[in-house]
Amino acid sequence: MTIKYAQRMENLKDDIIGELLKLADKPEIISFAGGLPASELFPIEEIKKVNERLMEENPISALQYSAAEGYDPLRKHIVKMMENSGVSIEMDNVLITTGSQQGLEFSAKLLIDKGDVIITESPSYLGAINAFHAYEPKFIDIEMDAEGIRIDLVEEAIKKNNKVKFIYVIPDFQNPTGRTMSIERRAQLVALANKYNIPIVEDNPYGALRFEGAMCPAIKHFDTADMVVYLGTMSKTFCPGLRIGWIVASKEMIKSYSILKQGADLQSNGFSQRQASLFMDMFDMQAHIEKIKQTYKIRRDLMLDTMKKEFPSEITYTNPDGGLFTWVTLPEHMDAEHVFKKAIELNVAFVPGEPFYPNGGHKNHFRLNYSAMTEEKIVEGIKRLGKVLQNL
Amino acid sequence: MTIKYAQRMENLKDDIIGELLKLADKPEIISFAGGLPASELFPIEEIKKVNERLMEENPISALQYSAAEGYDPLRKHIVKMMENSGVSIEMDNVLITTGSQQGLEFSAKLLIDKGDVIITESPSYLGAINAFHAYEPKFIDIEMDAEGIRIDLVEEAIKKNNKVKFIYVIPDFQNPTGRTMSIERRAQLVALANKYNIPIVEDNPYGALRFEGAMCPAIKHFDTADMVVYLGTMSKTFCPGLRIGWIVASKEMIKSYSILKQGADLQSNGFSQRQASLFMDMFDMQAHIEKIKQTYKIRRDLMLDTMKKEFPSEITYTNPDGGLFTWVTLPEHMDAEHVFKKAIELNVAFVPGEPFYPNGGHKNHFRLNYSAMTEEKIVEGIKRLGKVLQNL
Repeated sequence: MTIKYAQRMENLKDDIIGELLKLADKPEIISFAGGLPASELFPIEEIKKVNERLMEENPISALQYSAAEGYDPLRKHIVKMMENSGVSIEMDNVLITTGSQQGLEFSAKLLIDKGDVIITESPSYLGAINAFHAYEPKFIDIEMDAEGIRIDLVEEAIKKNNKVKFIYVIPDFQNPTGRTMSIERRAQLVALANKYNIPIVEDNPYGALRFEGAMCPAIKHFDTADMVVYLGTMSKTFCPGLRIGWIVASKEMIKSYSILKQGADLQSNGFSQRQASLFMDMFDMQAHIEKIKQTYKIRRDLMLDTMKKEFPSEITYTNPDGGLFTWVTLPEHMDAEHVFKKAIELNVAFVPGEPFYPNGGHKNHFRLNYSAMTEEKIVEGIKRLGKVLQNL
Repeated sequence: MTIKYAQRMENLKDDIIGELLKLADKPEIISFAGGLPASELFPIEEIKKVNERLMEENPISALQYSAAEGYDPLRKHIVKMMENSGVSIEMDNVLITTGSQQGLEFSAKLLIDKGDVIITESPSYLGAINAFHAYEPKFIDIEMDAEGIRIDLVEEAIKKNNKVKFIYVIPDFQNPTGRTMSIERRAQLVALANKYNIPIVEDNPYGALRFEGAMCPAIKHFDTADMVVYLGTMSKTFCPGLRIGWIVASKEMIKSYSILKQGADLQSNGFSQRQASLFMDMFDMQAHIEKIKQTYKIRRDLMLDTMKKEFPSEITYTNPDGGLFTWVTLPEHMDAEHVFKKAIELNVAFVPGEPFYPNGGHKNHFRLNYSAMTEEKIVEGIKRLGKVLQNL
């Protein structure tokens, strides 16, 4: 018999990217597709020591049920971490989530009624688009320029549409474009949020991974009226398998998020919350992040240099100051999915760009990740990709 | 400024239980309120060895991103575990969740449209009621007798109402009543599901903890037409802080659950999935469960014996064959919340029964947990509670 699903499942069609990437799931593939951090940089020896101390000190409380809001010493570490982004908060402004993906899911659940409008950058993170889709909103995706989302167009969209529920942005080394929003734009966006009483969801998985240029304060830094929800994660700076993310919002909002947390999974993993917290107690997190940045900078440079040599000159791409991705733009008539299929024949993978556009279209882009492959593979992979592109 | 939340948040009012239990959050309190497993039985030494082996063998894959469906060796352990409940499945019938609470949340998200009707036992697990509430259903709660939910009344409700979307039951040592559904009822419930094409969500956190009587096969055992979704967890048999739960359903349904998993939090914690799997590789899970059962049986016996001596004779309670809870019924005119307030004055806590009824009412019940307190505290706590009840 066929079980009748809820209407919302219509929006969650088969995972196109997942299906494409199954083609890429072979050991011989050089994959620029995922958003995986470099696993050879995981602090294995340090985590061994963390585990030992955890099991000696207070294993019972790590293994028992605990508070929905999260493990207080970890929340306090996050309060300190947020200072690096110019955000001054207290522990009760923080809820620990199962990765920042859960922060996206909860924000959608908290805010979206069916038919509401979400403003996103164009393109935007496809995992966020999927999480939001389940709550049946409409999307208005707004063009970006070199400084990030265009504020004038955001305001225009808000004026034309009285159902805008929130603005979703990834200001630092955006997924998928690698672009960073300028400081002026951040302040302007908050001013707009205040003017129209429309909250901002600021997703910041990559901000700590800046290779060059001055640190930008978070959008949340400019927030004077509790209109910004900030989503953070340790998946790119520590280990994604431990699923440590967090939400920063007003204390009142955190209470509502906490009710959602209880309904969704009661609490985040107590053991891993302590692993993350003890790691920061026992070791120098900033030094660990520096190591990651050095490695990624080398890989970015190598990827961009090789692209310059190997790609046809009419193909353009972004030059990110940090993060994990560069965004490639093909001539308008070309289809990245077609390029993907040709690339797979040469055992190279990437993510075609269309799913990053909430309303589809824009087939002439793709995303390349430079964090997960060795230098040798980056050169070899980009050479092969160059060959595919030269042939088309 | 005030941010406008989604309509669904109206259903998720302040956490009454949470507020009450804050009163109970003092070290001197004897608490029969939570559903906590006995933490002194957590296999600490074994988990130390598990952690060491995990970090020696393949720490990278535990710490990196991994598949939404879960860690295959753990899924295979679950396939074997399900055989103990008479359920024969393959690995692709299993999705790993962040505790079984996430299985409840996903089932609601997969199935419930606003205004749909969910049939539950009366009373039912309040965490499930809360998870479902977020998707704005109506509830029909159906009376139970000694054999569990009354099938005749379930059928009557289905006939009267064409919007019934699923039937939610906890067949073994139900939360909160401790009651177990008879084998006949299980088969009858599946027959009803098939007849009316209405799926069953079978929540089974306690089934492995049977102190006496013969094992009942799961409702899923009787499922011939893929109409039963089974939710399992290791929170009561291993450690809740590791948040290991699972969904068993048809392979097709698991694909849809997997899409929800990706949107909600991408994947469950890779480290803890391996902790659970390695524990079952390296140690005798069944022997560990036997230890838990012995301890809980002693505590149940002691609690019921002490209640018999100390409670006024007009107060009744269930005699569970397993699990964590007994359910106390006061004379109709009495209000358990009032009893709670008096009990807190004597430093004893429990959970008043009303929130376990999805449509409210039924103020003359409360739930007692016997798994989390020592024998000494059980006797002392029940004596104090007896005093409160004698005085009212």
